[in-house]
Parts: sequence; C-alpha cells; structure tokens
Amino acid sequence: MKRGEQTHPMTGNPQKPMTLALEAARDAARQGEVPVGAVIIRDGVVLASASNRTVTDQDPTAHAEILVLREAARKIGSERLIDCDLYVTLEPCAMCAGAISFARIRRLYFGAGDPKGGAVEHGPRFFSQPTCHHAPEIYGGLGETESATLLKEFFKERRNENT
Amino acid sequence: MKRGEQTHPMTGNPQKPMTLALEAARDAARQGEVPVGAVIIRDGVVLASASNRTVTDQDPTAHAEILVLREAARKIGSERLIDCDLYVTLEPCAMCAGAISFARIRRLYFGAGDPKGGAVEHGPRFFSQPTCHHAPEIYGGLGETESATLLKEFFKERRNENT
Repeated sequence: MKRGEQTHPMTGNPQKPMTLALEAARDAARQGEVPVGAVIIRDGVVLASASNRTVTDQDPTAHAEILVLREAARKIGSERLIDCDLYVTLEPCAMCAGAISFARIRRLYFGAGDPKGGAVEHGPRFFSQPTCHHAPEIYGGLGETESATLLKEFFKERRNENT
Repeated sequence: MKRGEQTHPMTGNPQKPMTLALEAARDAARQGEVPVGAVIIRDGVVLASASNRTVTDQDPTAHAEILVLREAARKIGSERLIDCDLYVTLEPCAMCAGAISFARIRRLYFGAGDPKGGAVEHGPRFFSQPTCHHAPEIYGGLGETESATLLKEFFKERRNENT
C-alpha cells in the first residue's frame, strides 16, 4: 500500500474526490451519524456519493462504502464495478472490504486509519488474505487529518451530550 | 465453535430454520444464482428469508445474509437485531461476517464450510479478530452435506454449460 497524498496518473488529482467524501462525512455528522463519507469515480465522473446512514436507515449494513457500491452498481447495471475507484474517509471495516473486493473496485483511497475496526491495515487485513480473490490498489492517508478530526469531534460532542 | 447437528435449548430444533434456508438456496439455483440461502429467527418466528441475489439485483452486496439482515432490521425498526439467530447454508464471507457482527446476531448457524471464501473458520476468521466487537455463538456443520451438494451440482452444471 502507498501512503500519502500523491497524484495518480490515471485518476488526476485524488484530492477532489476525497473532498467530496469529506463533505459527505460532514453531512453524516449533521444527521447524528458517525461521520464517514464515500464516493465512487469512473473516468473522472462521480457515479455515487453517500454518507454513513446506519441509524437513519435502521440498517446495520448502511456504511458509506456499501451505499456507494450499491448505487454505482445500479447505475452501471452490473454487480462488477470495472475501472471504478472508491474514496472513503475512514479505513474500511471487514464488511466493506469484502464488498469492495466483490465489486472489483480498481483503486481504494482512504483517509484515516481505524485501529479499532479497520480491516485493511488492521485486524483481518482482508486484502492480504488467501480468501480474498480481488484486491484493489490501495492508497491510505489521503485527507487523513481532516477525516480523523471530524470523527474525534463527533465522539467528543457525543460524550459531552451524555454527561 | 460447536459442530454438528445439535439441538439448542433456547431455539428448539435448529433443523427447521436450516431446512428453510436450504429451500431458499434451491430457489437461488433456479434463478441462476450461486445457491446460498439464509433465514433470521426471533422467538421461534421467521423474521426474514432470502436467497443470494447478486446477479438478479446487480448488487455485489446482495448475499443471502446481507438481505436477511436488512429485511429483519427493517421489520424490527432497529439496526441491532437483539435476540435474533441467523441460519445460512454456507460459511459467511468477510462482508457477511462483518454485517452479522454489526447487527448483534445472537447465534450463527451455518451449513457447509467455505475454504475458498469463508471468514469464520477460514481466511480472516473474523469473529476471533480484536477488531470484532461482537461475535455470535457459532454452530457450524448444520445441513452441511445438503448445502455442499447443492453448490457442487450448481457449479458442475455451469461447467457443463460452458463446455
């Protein structure tokens, strides 16, 4: 995995999609949802954008990544998202890493690492498992500080509300 | 994890829900989908039943487990499926294991093991990871032979169609 905010020749400037993902994460916080946002890009076009919506939708699977994968698949008309790149503000969990693999995502860009629940750099390190049959190229640490700050502020406010 | 076709005192006879899951798996095969079926039970009542539908729905996340988790959450009106048990004919993958954990499923019963893509007994062994914050009680091998036979026959027929 490559770390840092590099420009990839095929995708142009990855900052812009991550900025959209961060906007989606801020939307989540405003709705009282854990602030994580994701977008899927193909050929420089945004195919899908979503915030985490588990509480709003009363759906344990409604992480931002799952929502954009489902939306992009619907738009393309195929469960395989060939040549699509996914940007998400937080390191994906096992559920989302599995879905990213099934969808054949080409490149995964994520913001903050997630030692507690991540499955890319942490825990099961899903994409390195022999049972993972498609791994995207992975770029971590893009928009890391802003993404982590959003999460920290959200949980700090929640703690304050509960005391 | 406990193996074999035992009866659990709290759930009554687990054969019956697994029979329903196997029926759902047969439905999947008839639709040209990989034959996996799942049901969710609470207090002896079927809350949700589904077949794998990734091709039909053009949705990479539409595994039987994800579909029943979403349906049961919608019925209950909560993303946490307290006191619910999930029966599935094949060992869950990482995506589904993650979702089962988020949904707080109480007991997981599965049929055939899946050395190629499973994430319970194989690969990431998700429920044993420190990043897994809720693990169900797990009972493997329930309806194993019938489940495995369904899958073998399905892939054998597919190979025959392609030759």
